[in-house]
Amino acid sequence: MGEEKKKSEKLTIVLHSGDMDKAYSALIIANGALAMGMEASIFFTFWGLQRLRKDKAFAFPPAGLEKGPLSKMNFLGLGKWMIKQRMKKANVVSLEKLMADFKELGGKVIACDMTMEIMGIKPEDLRQEWIDECGGVGGFIQEARESGVVLFI
Amino acid sequence: MGEEKKKSEKLTIVLHSGDMDKAYSALIIANGALAMGMEASIFFTFWGLQRLRKDKAFAFPPAGLEKGPLSKMNFLGLGKWMIKQRMKKANVVSLEKLMADFKELGGKVIACDMTMEIMGIKPEDLRQEWIDECGGVGGFIQEARESGVVLFI
Amino acid sequence: MGEEKKKSEKLTIVLHSGDMDKAYSALIIANGALAMGMEASIFFTFWGLQRLRKDKAFAFPPAGLEKGPLSKMNFLGLGKWMIKQRMKKANVVSLEKLMADFKELGGKVIACDMTMEIMGIKPEDLRQEWIDECGGVGGFIQEARESGVVLFI
Repeated sequence: MGEEKKKSEKLTIVLHSGDMDKAYSALIIANGALAMGMEASIFFTFWGLQRLRKDKAFAFPPAGLEKGPLSKMNFLGLGKWMIKQRMKKANVVSLEKLMADFKELGGKVIACDMTMEIMGIKPEDLRQEWIDECGGVGGFIQEARESGVVLFI
Repeated sequence: MGEEKKKSEKLTIVLHSGDMDKAYSALIIANGALAMGMEASIFFTFWGLQRLRKDKAFAFPPAGLEKGPLSKMNFLGLGKWMIKQRMKKANVVSLEKLMADFKELGGKVIACDMTMEIMGIKPEDLRQEWIDECGGVGGFIQEARESGVVLFI
Repeated sequence: MGEEKKKSEKLTIVLHSGDMDKAYSALIIANGALAMGMEASIFFTFWGLQRLRKDKAFAFPPAGLEKGPLSKMNFLGLGKWMIKQRMKKANVVSLEKLMADFKELGGKVIACDMTMEIMGIKPEDLRQEWIDECGGVGGFIQEARESGVVLFI
């Protein structure tokens, strides 16, 4: 205890998926944890890291927080469009807003440096206003072993 | 200790996926935990929540516990049919039976209320005999921070 | 603590997915944990178990550690080939090498016996040099409840 938070009071997520619905789950869970007084970190890797890239019209794989497909029944974007319409009607906020809340509540964003090297992504390609650090697996393990809740999404 | 179970004695699963093979993994793990004296909760969200809906011939997305596709090599249902045949031969029980066991062993089913709102699902559309409560992210975080094992599936 | 490792010093992964990118994430995380002095176990189940099968030209589903598709944008293998090229350029080692390191660092490989029965896989079909034991959900729960970090991949 003392200087260190109790283990159960920290949440760490690996966001490996770049799917829209999974990014929603990750940020809603993380923001819920922050709202309840926990610490929260998200480690963006592989397809997930594409969501931290600046929006670009013709990037491959698609770049930008709102640019991920649905994990199922995407139907070339039609399913995603339908889900987004229903979300609007149910007053669910955008991923952009969820990320802004995550940062404001003190959440920590870590960009996977190995994915950056593999995909040829430079720091200036990423939304720097969100990123707390670039790191590798060692940093993740350090976060995870201090966390009571660790999720791979 | 005392009134509260030891943290390691509780398992919480978020079932985000609606895939048949992942529903099997979730229920087999949860029932294993219950059989070994742990508590277990499953929080059904997004595609996973579709598995709690009453069977319907033409629902979109498909509704019903046995109606999920395979996560890979589904081939319009052919792969799923093959896996089901092999499961029958290996005496693996149905999802319906696994869910009945889960409930009988004291497992807790939570239906995600935000998904219900987004997808326009009403309580009467769900298999009420299974559901212990409808809840949001706050309830999940509460379960998760008391759990020694938390899985996102 | 005495004879038993502290709970936070152990990592357990269920590898349900057979996707190449997810096998990379699982082994990189597990090897990172081992390198930092933790214990690590991977429980290979369902599609993940196919990665422990001996390479075969026409197996269905595809057998062999390097034979998994990408989880997204596989494009009949083209996307996977591109990612592999980029990995080579970034000096990322093969899954074969990661598995050899995992074993050398003391990692434990458990093959799911229920999947073997469903898929008709015999022990001699698997890479025996990697496998520490065949086991079921009971063994997994035992590992998981002793682990500080448990991931479903």
